[in-house]
Amino acid sequence: MVAEASVRHVYRFGVGTTDGRSSMKDLLGGKGANLAEMAQAGLPVPPGFTITTEVCAHVAGDAASGANKGNTELAIPNWLWPEIDAAMLEVEAAVDAKFGDATRPLLVSVRSGAAVSMPGMMDTVLNLGLNDAVCEGLAVRTGRARFAWDAYRRFVSMFGDVVMGVPRAEFEHALDAVKKDAGASTDQDLDEKALRDVVSRFKTIYRTHTGHAFPESPREQLERAILAVFASWNGDRAKKYREVQKIRGLKGTAVNVQAMVFGNTGPRSGTGVLFTRNPATGEKALYGEYLVDAQGEDVVAGTRTPSPIAKLHEDMPEVHAQLSALAQRLESHFKNVQDVEFTVQDGRLYLLQTRHGKRTGAAAVRIAVDLVNEGLVTREEAVANLVEPAHVDQLLHPHFADEVGYRKQGRVIAKGLAASPGAAVGRVVFHAEDAESWKARGEKVVLVRMETSPEDVAGMHAAEGVLTSRGGMTSHAAVVARGWGKPCVAGCGDLIVDYRTKTLSNGRVTVGEGDWLSLNGTTGEVVTGKETLADAVVSGSLEHFMGWVDGMRVLRVRTNADTPKDAATARAFGAEGIGLCRTEHMFFEDSRILAMRRMILADDEKGRRAALALLLPEQRKDFAGIFRAMAGLPVTIRLLDPPLHEFLPNDAVQQEQVARATGMRVERVRQRVNALHESNPMLGHRGCRLGITHPEITEMQARAIFEAACEVSAEGVEVLPEVMVPLVGTVAELVHQKAIVLDVAETVFAEKGTRVAFHVGTMIEVPRAALVADTIAREAEFFSFGTNDLTQMTLGYSRDDIASFVPRYVEKGILGDDPFQSIDVEGVGQLVRLACERGRAARPGLHLGICGEHGGDPRSIAFFADVGLDYVSCSPFRVPVARLAAAQAALRGKVNTKQGEA
Amino acid sequence: MVAEASVRHVYRFGVGTTDGRSSMKDLLGGKGANLAEMAQAGLPVPPGFTITTEVCAHVAGDAASGANKGNTELAIPNWLWPEIDAAMLEVEAAVDAKFGDATRPLLVSVRSGAAVSMPGMMDTVLNLGLNDAVCEGLAVRTGRARFAWDAYRRFVSMFGDVVMGVPRAEFEHALDAVKKDAGASTDQDLDEKALRDVVSRFKTIYRTHTGHAFPESPREQLERAILAVFASWNGDRAKKYREVQKIRGLKGTAVNVQAMVFGNTGPRSGTGVLFTRNPATGEKALYGEYLVDAQGEDVVAGTRTPSPIAKLHEDMPEVHAQLSALAQRLESHFKNVQDVEFTVQDGRLYLLQTRHGKRTGAAAVRIAVDLVNEGLVTREEAVANLVEPAHVDQLLHPHFADEVGYRKQGRVIAKGLAASPGAAVGRVVFHAEDAESWKARGEKVVLVRMETSPEDVAGMHAAEGVLTSRGGMTSHAAVVARGWGKPCVAGCGDLIVDYRTKTLSNGRVTVGEGDWLSLNGTTGEVVTGKETLADAVVSGSLEHFMGWVDGMRVLRVRTNADTPKDAATARAFGAEGIGLCRTEHMFFEDSRILAMRRMILADDEKGRRAALALLLPEQRKDFAGIFRAMAGLPVTIRLLDPPLHEFLPNDAVQQEQVARATGMRVERVRQRVNALHESNPMLGHRGCRLGITHPEITEMQARAIFEAACEVSAEGVEVLPEVMVPLVGTVAELVHQKAIVLDVAETVFAEKGTRVAFHVGTMIEVPRAALVADTIAREAEFFSFGTNDLTQMTLGYSRDDIASFVPRYVEKGILGDDPFQSIDVEGVGQLVRLACERGRAARPGLHLGICGEHGGDPRSIAFFADVGLDYVSCSPFRVPVARLAAAQAALRGKVNTKQGEA
Repeated sequence: MVAEASVRHVYRFGVGTTDGRSSMKDLLGGKGANLAEMAQAGLPVPPGFTITTEVCAHVAGDAASGANKGNTELAIPNWLWPEIDAAMLEVEAAVDAKFGDATRPLLVSVRSGAAVSMPGMMDTVLNLGLNDAVCEGLAVRTGRARFAWDAYRRFVSMFGDVVMGVPRAEFEHALDAVKKDAGASTDQDLDEKALRDVVSRFKTIYRTHTGHAFPESPREQLERAILAVFASWNGDRAKKYREVQKIRGLKGTAVNVQAMVFGNTGPRSGTGVLFTRNPATGEKALYGEYLVDAQGEDVVAGTRTPSPIAKLHEDMPEVHAQLSALAQRLESHFKNVQDVEFTVQDGRLYLLQTRHGKRTGAAAVRIAVDLVNEGLVTREEAVANLVEPAHVDQLLHPHFADEVGYRKQGRVIAKGLAASPGAAVGRVVFHAEDAESWKARGEKVVLVRMETSPEDVAGMHAAEGVLTSRGGMTSHAAVVARGWGKPCVAGCGDLIVDYRTKTLSNGRVTVGEGDWLSLNGTTGEVVTGKETLADAVVSGSLEHFMGWVDGMRVLRVRTNADTPKDAATARAFGAEGIGLCRTEHMFFEDSRILAMRRMILADDEKGRRAALALLLPEQRKDFAGIFRAMAGLPVTIRLLDPPLHEFLPNDAVQQEQVARATGMRVERVRQRVNALHESNPMLGHRGCRLGITHPEITEMQARAIFEAACEVSAEGVEVLPEVMVPLVGTVAELVHQKAIVLDVAETVFAEKGTRVAFHVGTMIEVPRAALVADTIAREAEFFSFGTNDLTQMTLGYSRDDIASFVPRYVEKGILGDDPFQSIDVEGVGQLVRLACERGRAARPGLHLGICGEHGGDPRSIAFFADVGLDYVSCSPFRVPVARLAAAQAALRGKVNTKQGEA
Repeated sequence: MVAEASVRHVYRFGVGTTDGRSSMKDLLGGKGANLAEMAQAGLPVPPGFTITTEVCAHVAGDAASGANKGNTELAIPNWLWPEIDAAMLEVEAAVDAKFGDATRPLLVSVRSGAAVSMPGMMDTVLNLGLNDAVCEGLAVRTGRARFAWDAYRRFVSMFGDVVMGVPRAEFEHALDAVKKDAGASTDQDLDEKALRDVVSRFKTIYRTHTGHAFPESPREQLERAILAVFASWNGDRAKKYREVQKIRGLKGTAVNVQAMVFGNTGPRSGTGVLFTRNPATGEKALYGEYLVDAQGEDVVAGTRTPSPIAKLHEDMPEVHAQLSALAQRLESHFKNVQDVEFTVQDGRLYLLQTRHGKRTGAAAVRIAVDLVNEGLVTREEAVANLVEPAHVDQLLHPHFADEVGYRKQGRVIAKGLAASPGAAVGRVVFHAEDAESWKARGEKVVLVRMETSPEDVAGMHAAEGVLTSRGGMTSHAAVVARGWGKPCVAGCGDLIVDYRTKTLSNGRVTVGEGDWLSLNGTTGEVVTGKETLADAVVSGSLEHFMGWVDGMRVLRVRTNADTPKDAATARAFGAEGIGLCRTEHMFFEDSRILAMRRMILADDEKGRRAALALLLPEQRKDFAGIFRAMAGLPVTIRLLDPPLHEFLPNDAVQQEQVARATGMRVERVRQRVNALHESNPMLGHRGCRLGITHPEITEMQARAIFEAACEVSAEGVEVLPEVMVPLVGTVAELVHQKAIVLDVAETVFAEKGTRVAFHVGTMIEVPRAALVADTIAREAEFFSFGTNDLTQMTLGYSRDDIASFVPRYVEKGILGDDPFQSIDVEGVGQLVRLACERGRAARPGLHLGICGEHGGDPRSIAFFADVGLDYVSCSPFRVPVARLAAAQAALRGKVNTKQGEA
């Protein structure tokens, strides 16, 4: 915690001198660093200054320590004021105005800005510095009394809401009352007198709620606003957002105090947001929207429907030309698509903010490819910085199988903005909390709102897709949903959303809570009923981009697949082999489960062998199909893993069926089910423990593998089987199972008169196995980390039972993440690292991979790359994600190495 | 595997030269090393030689590799014969006889002998070297034809049985037939002619079963016998014994070939076994028994009832005097009580074998104290070598609460030899296999046999006690039971044991299978019905001995106790504090379970707090009682650990009761029970996870602890509470819980106007906690290893579910031990060691203990001492055992250090 007066806490920008740089995000926040960068680059930025994130940490404490102080308990340290005052003097000089002065009034905005962009999550106050006297002065100086009082009423309500927690609705009701009195239908229709009335009413509301008069002192206003920004860092909304987004390790938010410019001073003024390229498609064209005679909040809030940026060409051609030129400069400078807030005051253009633009997966890939082709970035830069693994994931999201069909059937009840592509199907809910609770009980939901706000983020996250009746492409709903790659149809004004009756309607068709709804985020269509989703396909720019990706990664990517179909899908997605073929899923098919049950219910080895003989040809067929699908690529087959009771039914009716089918007494079936019951099946009789107590199972599976391998090999197909022994804890277990596998292999090769090269290895999923990896490596040709089980045992978390405490743990910061989503580097990671080191020391050529769910998680992949695994294995649809994450890990590794060398 | 001809494989003894020493047990086996030692010491040992254990390893392979070759597949390597022949020449010279020579016949015994004594487990052949010609020659040379043919018939049957696997019963039937024909009631009554007939019949049996004639060549006999000994090393009996006794790491058995001496050459001959002190009581007096005109096998087998050694004074006074003198020399030489086999041949005494005598716990302690007092050993030697932890354990075994009572009631149905002290109560079974299977289904059993044999060891182990109708104090049953400290009444000739009807009877009272029986191994009484057992008490020699023990150990010993009564018991046994006070057991009492259930069933925190308020005074009372019982000693209290569903009933009837008692709808109770159900409760919502999701539970428990501490402290009693947070995996969990504890402590101290010193620490039982022990140690003042859970998670074994595979694992040698009995040093031990190192590095004064079941296991204690823990904590009755094990570990540590210095 930095608090000495000798350190600089306030950084100026655009006042002639600019202190910051874009690399100082940790200290100045993204917004402050970018404003500094923009000023340095000579872009038209209103002057201002940034109070550092370290001050936030000092003043507000950090969330992890639980020191979540309320706004009113905070105070600006004495040593900070001189720095603020000095900076303010320079801002005053730069714009020839004075803060708090009625004749040459300087108004400022106070905004938050952390190192990572958190749209809508932090609080902002505009028009700060107004009081009755200054307002009159502003009216005189600008000659626009209406504008001055409009600014004043905005300021009072915003300050009341954001800084003092006065309910916004009260201000809105008061405004509505005045509008009604004045017979005005919009805010624009209110004249100066009405606005004076509004200000007066607002001040009364303020006093009623806070117990104090509205602060007339601009300095007090500034103090309170700065503290409100700091306090908002630890507000529930911000914390929830960071939790969902997994944002951690930040000091706090910076505070940006900047001279106000006004987009609402008349028809030659306006405000808007601009993407330098289309963030939905990636098309190289200015993209965004603006409102004439408005402040920025009007655009983002979605309360007025803005015009597309192309129309600016008609309204203000010079400004449009300036924006086009600036877009070029911004992209060259920042090497990325920019998301810009701009304001035009009386024909003069200001850029208020610029940041890397959030975009859809499709846009990200297209932009990356285009920027490389345009020579703006290198391929490495494009792969490292311009496409996130989540973007690729999003591209692979399903779409509707039959768009033509629902159109023909007339089930499209409305069309809104295609705010975030992809298709979503779920049951309708109208409140974010409902989305969360329905999701928690296993329902898929679509969240329908008039508009969304930061309070809704958790519910939005829980939903399959989001539909709003208001707001534009840059509305809260649209921005947040795009960031997550979650389908969103926004601003669907044809629909009436009624929270009270819990319905949405286009006037003809009404959809109620719990009804199925399908959203096409790519077209903006809202479709009644439950549409069928279809798989995504990889093509075009993505293929091009993934080609670069594959050239940059070291880590190989395999897939977890149990069927020839999955294997083929994964191969199409670029899988370089199968890292985990679970053989037990094969036993659950109708035709086989009976034989499996016979095996389990058999009284002795003879009975088991008879049942296994029925399973042998089925397994052989499965393996042969997978070998064919993976021709020339390795296929790692795991021997039977789950406890046997998973194959037997628990309920009496099914037990009777089993008894009939097997010709056993039902009592005997019941007894066997009871005998197989386990207190903690996760830690019970499963994995290689089965193969050791019932060697005949291992024998059958090994035979099926080698017979299939010989068969497919005889067809001229290259077969590379790897036999994997699960749940090994001691080398003796592996020795036992390996002996059986080698024995069966030799027998089958002798029978077939041919040989197939193969490997025998083991999973490392029991903590003990990691600890004794050196001894195990002497017998294993490969390790595959089963990080699901390794996480369960290392943390003592049963994956099926964590819902009762892990969410609370994440909420309280006891866990950074759900350790089943992203690997626990500090704990489980130690065992992985140790096993790699010991294993490779004992057997230098040891092949290392991972086949847990973490194999598809980008952050985990970065860790696995760091540890030096040879491959990760993940579900087919995550393969492209993993490929990109692997490349990014390799590029980061290069950077780290270079830095290390420098 | 040593097999070069340049290495010595045969070691001579008693042939003028003696090659071996007692320290060479690994190579020569215990018997061979001792014979060498005895010869070196000038004791009267028949000459012979020992073939090393390395030859056994070479010839028979070892069990772990699964190379369990049958006798007939083995062969004596060519390089061995010259060594055997050379040694045999020296033996021949020493006794002036020649192997295979009919005029001066040399007969030999061939015996096994591994480095660890395994009575009865390995095979022995006597009188080897006899054939028809040699037998006639022996008859001539000794002038005792009957003796010669008796030796021959013994040899043929023993060779047939042991070497060739001919069923012993066949020989016995043939012998019985001859006896019947001859009208003889005992073997002794058979004359030469009858014995010739026996030999002839035996040879026929031999040929029938083996398909070969009985080998007339002494050299072939020798070869086959040596190989049979080697093969028996991997026989099922030997392997089972090693498994039960946890004997591992041996190369194999040595083979001792020794000139025969005969106890059956007439009335001036005899054979017997001698303990230099009484192995049941430790009394300093020769103890044992002998048979006149008999071979050693007759004594051990228990087929003839021998005379007590005191009677030898009458039969052969000179021999008795020699034995007394030899006993002194043996004890001085071996610094331990010796178990000697001796034979008198025509008035001349030979010692065939000596070894440390197995003894009861009472005897061991008394002997240790006496030998120190007699100046034969130092106190350190006594503690290190003369008492095993199991001996102490045995002393603490229960006895019958009311011996007078059952005597008055006339329920003593018989009195046998008090072969192994202690009291046992169980249901009668008649077969070893039944003992095993009844035990497996949870029954306590008493095994009743006419006599026991090595095949019965597993069943004996499973039984609470053993009763035999035949055999003496050194019979198989007696020796094995004493070794285990298991009560045994032997040679109870009053009882008729009938295997067919499964009854035992004294002619008046008949007891059947499944009936309850009580055995008093200290008095030899057999009592009908189910007697009540009473706790043991520590006193006399033991207290004296334990005084020495405590002076030699570094490791402190605490106890696991949940009640003032247990705490007091443990303190009487020498506990130096409580290492684990489980608070949950307190909640199960009738008066409290309802409040606990109310707490669990409450809808919100308010409801939970109301229920907890009812539990607070109860917990406070418990803690106060424990603090008083442990005045001046530390008391480690673990916060609530088990999952909440353990406190709720699963069956409908009890759920209805709970509903009535709490005034809730039964449906709601059922729902709550269902909601709390977990797939793997071991890895679920328990431990500190409860305290974090329900901080009010931790608050209540902390309040109870500190209120009790203040209360008892105010009485002038020194209170040393240590609050232990269970199941911590991340330091954040500990931080969270510690904050609550510290907070409550301050509040209570403020309320009471007093302070009590205390510590806050954590259990290390989740593997992750061990891995991040450095960060946890920054917050924890102590670690207590919960090795039960640590073992479950590190190995992935649910303690409740291992019965389906761990026994097979131990059987197959995949596991050396049940890891819940003796700590898995290689795996779990690594985590313990690592956590100690990292924890102490982060906090030098970190206090370290262990409170799992392993805290009472001597081998585990040796490991914990080595790792440098401060204390172990175990159940009250294990405390003295742990104290001794700790001292022995310390003494071994000294020896190791000394060796390291040398």
